[in-house]
Parts: sequence; structure tokens; C-alpha cells
Amino acid sequence: MFRAECDNYSMESDIPFLGPRHAMELQEFSRKPKRSGSHTLRELLQWVGDTTNDEYSRVLEVHGQAFQHTLVPFTLSFHNLTYSVKNSRKIRPACFSSRSTGSNICEPSSGTVAGNESRMRVLLNDISGEAREGEILAVLGASGSGKSTMIDALANRISRESLKGTISLNGEVLESKLLKVISAYVMQDDLLFPMLTVEETLMFSAEFRLPETMPRSRKRARVQVLIDQLGLRSAAKTIIGDEGHRGVSGGERRRVSIGTDIVHDPILLFLDEPTSGLDSTSAYMVVKVLQRIAQSGSIVIMSIHQPSYRILSLLDRLIVLSRGQTVFSGSPGSIPRFFAEFGNPIPANEDKTEFALDYIRELEGTPGRTKNLVDFNKSWQKIRDPQTIPSNGPKLSLKDAISASISMGKLVSGATNMDSNQSSSFSMFANSFWTEILIIAKRSITNSKRAPELFAVRFGAVLVTGMILATMFRKLDNSPRGIQERIAFFAFAMSTTFYTCAEAIPMFLLQRYIFMRETAYNAYRRSSFVLSHAIISIPSLLILSLTFSATTYWAVGLDGGTSGFLFFFTFMFASFWAGSSFVTFLSGIIFNVMMAYTIVVAILAYFLLFSGFFISRDRIPPYWIWFHYASLVKYPYQGVLQNEFDDATKCFVRGIQVFDGSPLKVVPDKTKLMMLKTMSTTLGMNITGSTCLVTGEDILKQSGVTDLNKWSCLCIIVALGFFFRILFYFALLLGSKNKRR
Amino acid sequence: MFRAECDNYSMESDIPFLGPRHAMELQEFSRKPKRSGSHTLRELLQWVGDTTNDEYSRVLEVHGQAFQHTLVPFTLSFHNLTYSVKNSRKIRPACFSSRSTGSNICEPSSGTVAGNESRMRVLLNDISGEAREGEILAVLGASGSGKSTMIDALANRISRESLKGTISLNGEVLESKLLKVISAYVMQDDLLFPMLTVEETLMFSAEFRLPETMPRSRKRARVQVLIDQLGLRSAAKTIIGDEGHRGVSGGERRRVSIGTDIVHDPILLFLDEPTSGLDSTSAYMVVKVLQRIAQSGSIVIMSIHQPSYRILSLLDRLIVLSRGQTVFSGSPGSIPRFFAEFGNPIPANEDKTEFALDYIRELEGTPGRTKNLVDFNKSWQKIRDPQTIPSNGPKLSLKDAISASISMGKLVSGATNMDSNQSSSFSMFANSFWTEILIIAKRSITNSKRAPELFAVRFGAVLVTGMILATMFRKLDNSPRGIQERIAFFAFAMSTTFYTCAEAIPMFLLQRYIFMRETAYNAYRRSSFVLSHAIISIPSLLILSLTFSATTYWAVGLDGGTSGFLFFFTFMFASFWAGSSFVTFLSGIIFNVMMAYTIVVAILAYFLLFSGFFISRDRIPPYWIWFHYASLVKYPYQGVLQNEFDDATKCFVRGIQVFDGSPLKVVPDKTKLMMLKTMSTTLGMNITGSTCLVTGEDILKQSGVTDLNKWSCLCIIVALGFFFRILFYFALLLGSKNKRR
Repeated sequence: MFRAECDNYSMESDIPFLGPRHAMELQEFSRKPKRSGSHTLRELLQWVGDTTNDEYSRVLEVHGQAFQHTLVPFTLSFHNLTYSVKNSRKIRPACFSSRSTGSNICEPSSGTVAGNESRMRVLLNDISGEAREGEILAVLGASGSGKSTMIDALANRISRESLKGTISLNGEVLESKLLKVISAYVMQDDLLFPMLTVEETLMFSAEFRLPETMPRSRKRARVQVLIDQLGLRSAAKTIIGDEGHRGVSGGERRRVSIGTDIVHDPILLFLDEPTSGLDSTSAYMVVKVLQRIAQSGSIVIMSIHQPSYRILSLLDRLIVLSRGQTVFSGSPGSIPRFFAEFGNPIPANEDKTEFALDYIRELEGTPGRTKNLVDFNKSWQKIRDPQTIPSNGPKLSLKDAISASISMGKLVSGATNMDSNQSSSFSMFANSFWTEILIIAKRSITNSKRAPELFAVRFGAVLVTGMILATMFRKLDNSPRGIQERIAFFAFAMSTTFYTCAEAIPMFLLQRYIFMRETAYNAYRRSSFVLSHAIISIPSLLILSLTFSATTYWAVGLDGGTSGFLFFFTFMFASFWAGSSFVTFLSGIIFNVMMAYTIVVAILAYFLLFSGFFISRDRIPPYWIWFHYASLVKYPYQGVLQNEFDDATKCFVRGIQVFDGSPLKVVPDKTKLMMLKTMSTTLGMNITGSTCLVTGEDILKQSGVTDLNKWSCLCIIVALGFFFRILFYFALLLGSKNKRR
Repeated sequence: MFRAECDNYSMESDIPFLGPRHAMELQEFSRKPKRSGSHTLRELLQWVGDTTNDEYSRVLEVHGQAFQHTLVPFTLSFHNLTYSVKNSRKIRPACFSSRSTGSNICEPSSGTVAGNESRMRVLLNDISGEAREGEILAVLGASGSGKSTMIDALANRISRESLKGTISLNGEVLESKLLKVISAYVMQDDLLFPMLTVEETLMFSAEFRLPETMPRSRKRARVQVLIDQLGLRSAAKTIIGDEGHRGVSGGERRRVSIGTDIVHDPILLFLDEPTSGLDSTSAYMVVKVLQRIAQSGSIVIMSIHQPSYRILSLLDRLIVLSRGQTVFSGSPGSIPRFFAEFGNPIPANEDKTEFALDYIRELEGTPGRTKNLVDFNKSWQKIRDPQTIPSNGPKLSLKDAISASISMGKLVSGATNMDSNQSSSFSMFANSFWTEILIIAKRSITNSKRAPELFAVRFGAVLVTGMILATMFRKLDNSPRGIQERIAFFAFAMSTTFYTCAEAIPMFLLQRYIFMRETAYNAYRRSSFVLSHAIISIPSLLILSLTFSATTYWAVGLDGGTSGFLFFFTFMFASFWAGSSFVTFLSGIIFNVMMAYTIVVAILAYFLLFSGFFISRDRIPPYWIWFHYASLVKYPYQGVLQNEFDDATKCFVRGIQVFDGSPLKVVPDKTKLMMLKTMSTTLGMNITGSTCLVTGEDILKQSGVTDLNKWSCLCIIVALGFFFRILFYFALLLGSKNKRR
């Protein structure tokens, strides 16, 4: 009943279209009635959020009322947008350096003000227009024409100091924070976890974006609705896939990407070239999905390189850019008239956009460039195209309009972002800190389970190294030589720990990009990501350290029995912890895998050099001693040495063994015993063949590892692990600024 | 005069078009008259190659004669091409895993015979058609429809055992070797050296592909002609560029790619998606260039995902594939009639190819799939499209036709490939072995000069490590402790050498892909590449070893004066040589940079562990001793140790120093002297405070490095370097097979 009414209504008038999906949602989620007299947006939204328990019938009824108030659709207007950057020769501002697209198709772009003397490059030059609810606004143009920049400008991804001009929603200036709540931005890259299924990916997105208070069943329902909306029903149980694992198709992947960003049903949706890299049918289906989203009560703004004929039919409004200037603005249908009036009619049989874009490209090559066309467009806008004149009909205030929209089921998350009663600023996150940690951990664990080979490689490396060391340093004795070999074993073992951590670098790379995407729109706190990342690393580090300790400890014949083993194991674990923290931190500041790996290996080599093994602490020149204390290898190396040699009752050099380290080693035992006797006389003490001459303490002193006891070492190494995790947090905080300057 | 004649002629008839470029070439290169009575192709071509000194006037005259004989254009026919592969779950045969495209847009593709039981996948299913000189044949279809496979089949990139069906040129079966000489295959990826200019890139290609006997000036002229033909005049002096260096645009880069493959003016040109990743204008210009090439007397066969309207107008013949089957074959103009007769007319305002491809995609989703369309196409071919019926006009034999084409300036290289009079097989390479080495070296040097930062990073790493070691191990003395530190210094220094070699891995990656492309069509011998690669690495290795030796030798206080330094330097150089050879070999068998780097680092770590430093040779368990001898670090480590300690006259432990390594170190000197005295009595020899107790030889014995002398070590390390280069050669030989099975 209601459904039919809606459909008819929307088809007959200019108000937001309520498609079947929307009607479906109405049955899934409770609606929130509009209350008159709410003054601040926060109050309004908060109040809306409080009414989640209303029973359906009432909601539907009240919804009917709200509906009448939102007859005027959302309209995003922008006027005279201008954005310039300093022209640096090194950086190409028009190119978005992207991992996945790889190829380098940046063209010399945009106009430079006053030739080469001035170094300001105008990326956007006095651009005006508007986008309406229920419609798709597409920004067209060649590479480097400013398409992405314009999407960035509208999506508030350019700092307001640099961007000139006004952007308003329903006539009111759009605040940055509000925009973040009611909008979504879909990047050009599909950054998804390859081992999750489509459904899982969207479900995790729902868990991140939708309010904690919403029952899981409702979130699940929302995801199911979304899957249908995105046309992903048949692929719902398929993993995303990557080079090594077959997954969904490129078009499906793109739609999943869009889905993760619109799970909260935003009012404003920005997309940077959503069809790039897709074949025509996939591209068409993506835009078809966008049309459906628009018609559910959103404004969709996308950039597109060159729409095909079929895609063009889905677009409601176009802005064609050339070197940052508008050369055409209007509906696709008005293109022929525009070019005819400009004096360059499009031949009957030609593809209209193709012709138009090629013609613009041609003009760009001429001396006067596109100036005439830009000027013509300006005058044409004023006279011909009525769409660019703001509609002056009866209007709701922005707050009321958003409230009404929420009551119609939009902004599933936004509604309850306001749950907290803090007066200074409203909470930007859907979940509490600990819930976020839980969800992130759950996702990571699912990922690891699906790709066990990543852990298997590390495990294999640790196991193989452990076994090589176990067989190489098999059953070491307590002779002077055995002691040297024990020390060598410790040095090698401790550096191995750190080296195997380096293998985790590529693992974090994908995560980092996804992290940047997700935090850009406040899916979760950076801190909970860091903490969750640390927590879930612990079980695997425990397994690795246990494996290594168990493989080597008894085989090498280390000292201390069970308690010694426990301490050795603890130190291994602490080293792995510190090592993984260090590597995680580095991967947070160095974005190129190869570079990160090289630097990690180099730094670890220096750590080993300065650890005290190659040259003992007391022999390190004073100007290098700081590096000795900065060396991550020092502390575990020193700790395990102390653990091995701190037994006061144990003797390492007894009687005639004293000559083993010296040239006198070769003389017969009898002679050695005689020498000991003579020495006893000389020194005035009784040294027999079994007198202890070197204790563990002596060895520690000789190795120069007595400045800190083993417990201090343990504390320091664990603390360093935490320290690097904190640095990692700050690296993410500073490195994930998502705005252009 | 001649030019005008040509142009008119070509416009009025169906014979190969001679554009302005061709006319230009006629003035650049000498023409070769056709001689009647030549019987074998080799004789024919060889004879053609011998007449390069004829004066122009006669050539032009004779050319006129030859021209009349080639009225019948080249025609490549293929019948019933069928190709199946075993369906492996791990590998996706329909996806060409590509570095530069990155994104993963592979679709479930092609038909599986008899469902899931049988594991044979039919990639090409009974495909017939023909392509003619002067025309472009385009293979269309969705991702995974078999486009690339079909291009591969025609270009002889699928082994003849697997591919069923016949391929013939002018009615004669095309031999593999002949095809290689008269054709070119342009890959989808633009694999070009980023730091060379467009002109240089094409010039190097000319040097590789055009005969050695052709004067450089003519090669230069050919490159200039090519630059104009490709429309690259304005970009000629611009570097190709990469992420870090701004270069030419994507479309220009693609055209350079094509240029490098057609520098010898092939009769047959195959291109795998030449327009992928380009914007419409760039794509159009690429196809326009291909049209020009076709009209200069070539057959052009390309795959294309979905041609735009404008591109379609440049294509002469289409084959549309769906899951390996032909669903349409004919001229672009016949598409509407075809679909109308099939019962699914294309609406007036729709883009024809877009509609057709979308319709096919829709059919693919239906239960009966495209069977009806495939069948309809078969019957339609027989009745309607006269183009697929082979022309039965007067014909030259294939040999005569090629000969005539060569006399018109085609196959600039092919003509003189036959210079050698060897009877067993004719030479496949344009240049002699040494010339190839020279050209490859020249190109590498140009590249290195343009990107000095690559060497600078390695140089910096060596310099910094050298300086850290120099300050860390500053002025070591000859005390027992000093000796230990010297040994530690050598171990660390020698491993550093190997580690810094690992930094060269990414450098080789790009080179490897270019190598594969270039050797696929015999641009040069694999052996000359390997040798050239080795030779040009030497100067940089010399600089690195000199830097490291000079930084550390005197600072650390190593022994041996100038000759000692020279030996130390020689060993450093030998280590760098062996290390770089080892790393080069690994990069030749492991194609993933990250993986290669990880493996290199792990292997080097084990090399260090087994070198004899961590545990001396006589203490290594017998089951690991093979690894000790396999360790690359062992030989330089042992060599420099011997160099340091082989001075028989030098004493390292004298008199009372004998106690330094033992617990007795702490007693007063006076007591030590007394003990020496007592020991003298006991041992029956006179030991005073200055008696030498440990010589260098003793140290070497103690360190277990006496099994080989230093010269043997040097020989072994140098030999290992050569050994790994040879392995590298075999890796390239086996790894660069360019055919599908």
C-alpha cells in the first residue's frame, strides 16, 4: 500500500524518489518523526536518535507527515570555487599517485597564471553549479582537467584556507563536521581485505559505521538491503580476492567499495572516477547503482573520464572541465544545442560526449585555448539553462531537512552519532573505544584465518632458523670455547628475532591504506586501531617465541632448567614484541615496502653491530655509546647472557682449563698441573685441577654486559615495544591527514 | 613527382597505400630490384640484402616494376583455430597478470567442456577469418573472452602442438622462423627505460633491430621517419618518465612502445589491447597511427576491449569473441544489419558496438548462452559477408610477395638478417655478439647517468657503513682483545658487502621485463645481455670496494701497508663481484622484488652464520660442513684474515700478555712475570716478558681458517662470481620462454 503510494508520488513530481529499496527499508528500520521546535542540530539529531524504540505503525504514520515537509529536495550549491597550488617542479599535483592504477597517464594540466614567472597553478578556476537530491552530477574532463580536485573541493578534502568560494546545502553554509556526518567519499582505489567475503566486508563496515546501540540483527538486515541495492546478491558469499586468490569481478569489487562507504546511507555521496578500469557493462551497472542511491534521497556527485552512451543516459547533470575551468554545464540532453549555438554543431551520427570532449581537447591545443568556450558557457548559463538558477520554492531549514531525511531512514549512523551528551563536541564515532577494538580484532582474525600462509611463512622462518641454530650449536659445553659459542648463539638468535619481524611489513601495507580510508570518515578511532593491532599480534608472537625457545633451548644445552627456559622464552617474546612494534612503526612512516624493508634490515644490522657482541660495551668509543643504548638487540642479548651466566655456584673454567684460551693450551695436562702448582705458590693460594677460576660473573664482566641486570633489560625491552607502538599511533595521526593544503 | 603518383594510385584502387611516410623512406633507403628465378626464400632475401649499393635512380625505376607485381596484397588467413588448456584451480589462464595494470578485472571466462567433470577449458573454439594488408583487424570481446589468446595464437605465441587449426599467409603455411622475421608483437605493458628520451629509445631499438651493416646515419633517418609516423615529433626529446620523473603522456608512451617494435617495419603487426588505459583522444591517436602503419603495407591485428565510435571508424574488420567463440565477424558497418537479421535490431540512437557487446554480455548470462548467436554468425558468414571468402585473383608466391615488399622498403632489418652465408640456419640477430654488448652497455650507461640516485644510494650505504666501522673499530691494537675485534670487524665488513648488493635487486626488475620483451623477438642474444650486464657492473663495484677499503683500512689499523691494502681492496672487490652475481642470479629466478629481497637477506644471514665467524670450522658439526663451504662469506672472510695475520715475523701475544685472555689477567704484572719465570722452568724454555707466545699463524689456526690459503680463497670467490653469472644466463634462457603451452 504505502509502497505503491510512494512510487506513484515520486514519479509524478520533482520530489525525492522512494524506490523499492527505500520502501523495503521502511519495513526494516524504525522511522523517526519530526518534532517541531527543535533548535540546534545536535538537539534535533539527538532527539531523533532517542526514538529508536517507537513501534512501526506509529513511525510509518508519522513518517507520512515528515514526508510532506521534505517536498523541497536537498540542493548542494557551489559558487566561484577557485583553488591554486604552488607549482613545484618535483610534485605533480594533478596526478593522484595510486598503487593500484600504476600506469602514469598524467598530462600537463591546468593553466598557469601569467606564464612561467608565477609559480601558482590554478587547479580550479571560478566554478559554480549545483547538485540536487535524486540526481547524479557528473564532472567530466580529460586527465588533469581538475575533475578529482573538484570532487575533493566539494567533499571538503581541501583545506578551507586554500579553497576560495562558497559551498552551501539548501542555502546554508555547510559545516565541516556536519558534512562528515551526512556524506561519504568513495576513493578511486578498491581498498578491501581480499580474504573477506562481500557480505563480511559490508557487515564489518556496518559494525564500524552504524551505532553500537543498533541491534546486530538490524545491522545484518541493513547489509542485506545494501547487497540487493548494489546488485551483489549472487556474489555475497564470494571472497573479494587478489592476485593469489580468485574473487569477485572488478565491477563487483567496485560496488563493494561503494557499499562499504554508504552503509550508513549518506545524504551526500562523492565518488572519484567510480567507473575507471571497468568494462562498459560493469561501469554501467555501477552507475545504475548510483542512480538507485540518488533516487533513495541522496545527492550523488562523481567524476568520470568519459561516459559511454548508456551511462550518459543515467546522468542528470554534467560539468565539463578543461584546465580547471567550466566549459560546459547542464543536462546531457542540452549538449547538442550548446555546441550548435557555439557554432560547432555535433554531426548527427557522432557520439555526443565523445565529440564534445574531443573538440575541447582540440581547443586546448590551439593558442587561445578554451577561452571562447568558457566565456560562451558563462553567458549561455545565464540565458539558457534554467537548472543553474537556484529554485526559490518553499524551503525547510537545513536542520529540519536533515532531520526529515533521517526520519525517512537516511543516515542510519548519523542519527545516533549524537547519543553522547557532551556539550563541547558531539561524538564522531559510532562505537565506543572497546567495541571498536573488538570489531577490528575480529576482522583481523578472520583475515588471518583465511590467509594462513602469511603466518606460516614467518613461522617457517623462525622454525628453520631455530633448527639450524639447534643443530649448529648442538650441546655446547662449558669450556672457554663453548662459552664463546654460547655468546655467539645468543647474538645470532636475538638478531634473528628482529629480522623475522621484518617479514610482517607487506602485511601491514594493505591494512594501512584501508585504515586511511576508514579513518578518513571516522569509521573508528586511530587509537583503537593501534591498540587492536598490538593486541592481536600477541598470540602469534607467543607462538613464534615458544617455537624458537623450545627448538633451541635444550638442544643447545642452555643453563637454568625450567626457570631458565621460562626466562629465555620471556626474553624471546619481549624481543618479538619490541621487534614487531619497531617494524610496525617503520611501516607507518615509510610507505614503500621495498624502502621500508631495506631500512629495517640496515637498522637491524647496525643494532647488531652496536649490541655489544661484535665489540663489547667498554670498548665502544664514547661517541658511539648512545647507539649502543639505542640498540634494540642490546637488551635481549644482555638479558639472555645474564640468564645464562648468573648462576653464582656454576664454574666455567676450572683448574687446567685456564690455559685453554691461551697459547699454553697445547702443553700436556701434566705440565699444566705443575704450572698450576707453581702458580699457587707464586700467588699464595691453592689452585688445583678442580679449583674454579672463572665464574659466570667473570664472563659477564668480560663481555661488558653488567651495566643493567636482566630484569631491567626485560623492562626496557617491553617498554621500547610500547614506545614504538605509541610512535606508530602518532605516525598514523600525522600521516593520515586526508586534506589537500 | 613519384610521391604524387603513389598517392593517387593508392586512393583509386584496393592495393597497398603508400603514404607520405613511405615516399619519404624511398628517398632514404635504397630499393632492391626483384630478380626472377630466385628459388628459396633465403636466397631471395640474401640476394635482396646484397644489392644495397645500387644507385637511387635505378632503384626507383625497378621499384616501379616490383610494384606492379604486388598488386595482390598480403592476406593472413586462419581456419578453425582451437586451443584448450587444462583447467587448474590455482591459475587463471584468462588473466594476464600484469605489473602495470595492477587492478584485477578478470572475469570467470570461457566455456568449460562438459561442466566441472572435465578440466579442459576451451580458450579458442573453432575460429576462422582473415586479415589483409592495409587494413586493421580488431578482435573485440569482454575480459576473458579470448582476445589476447587469439592474438597470441596468430602471433605464434602458443606452441603449435597445443593450437589446432591452420594459419597461412597468402595461402602458404607460415613458418615460425619466417613469421618471427616479418612480424612484430606489441605487448600490453609499456616496458621502457624511464630515463631515456623518446628519440633515444627508438634509436636503441633501431640499433638492436636494424642490420649492423646499415650506416648509423640511415638508422637515425629511419628513427626520424618513425617519430613522424608515430606523431611523436613534439615529444622526441622528452624522457619516458616514471613515478619519480615527469615524462611523456600515457598515449605517447604507448606509441613509443609500438615504435620500438616496428622499427624494422614489419609486414605483420600484432598488438594486445594497444588502447587499454588511455583516454579516448590518446586511444584514437594510437589507432590512427596503426592505420597509417597498415596503409604503409602491413597487416595490423589488434585486440581491443571496446572501441569508441571514432576508433571504430578506423577499423576495417572486426571479430567479436565470446567465451572463445566468434559471435560476429565482418566490417563495422555490417553490425546493424547482422543484429537486425538475428532479430535484435540496434535502436537508432545507440552506440553500435556498445549495444552489441552489451547484448552479447546479456546473452552470456542466459542459460543457452551465446549458442544461437554463434550459430547464426556461422550461417551468416557463408551467405552475407563476401569479405571472408578468400580472393581468388592473380597471386604472387609468398616468397615473391615478401621479396617485393622488401624491395619497397619494408622489413628494414629482415632484409639483411640473411647476410651470413651459413647453410645450416640463417642468423636471427641483426648485430654481432660484440656489437650487441656494446649497444646494451651504452644504453645501461645512459640509464645510469640519468638516474644517478640509484648508484648514490648504494654508494651512500657503503660509505656510511664504512665510516661507522672505521669509527667503531678505530685503531685496534694487537692485544688479544684487539685481535678478537679485528676478527669481528672482518666478519661484519664482509657481510656488509653482500648486504649492500641486495639493494640492486629492484634495479634489475624493470630490466628483466624489458629483456623478456626484447629477446622475444631476437633484438639481441641472451648471452650478450648477461655479459654486458656483468661488464658494466664492474666500474661501480670498483668504486664501492675502493670506497669501503679506503674508509676502513687505515682507520681500523689493519696490517700489511700498501700491499696489504691492495689485497684487502682486491678481496672487497671480489666479494662485491660475487655478491652482485649471486643477487643478479636470484633476481633472475625470483620475479617478486619483495620475495627476492627476503630470500637474499635470509640466505646472506645463513652465509654469515656458517662463515666460520660465529662458530669456527673445526667446531661445525659434520652434517653442516657443506654449508660452510657453500657460504659466500667464508672465502673473503678467510682471505682477509689470512692477509691480516700471515706475517710470520709479527707477534700478537708477548710475555705477560698471555694471561690477558684468562682469569689471571687481573693479577699484578710483577706476579705475572714471576709466573712466566716458573713456567719457563717447568716447560724447560726461556719465557720472558717479550717472548712471542702467539704469532699470526696461531691465530689463524685458532680461528680455523687454515684449510685454504688466501690465493685459493680469492680464486674461489671470483670463480663463484662467474658461476652465478652463468646460472643467471640459464635462468634467463629457461625463464623467458615466450610461448603458451
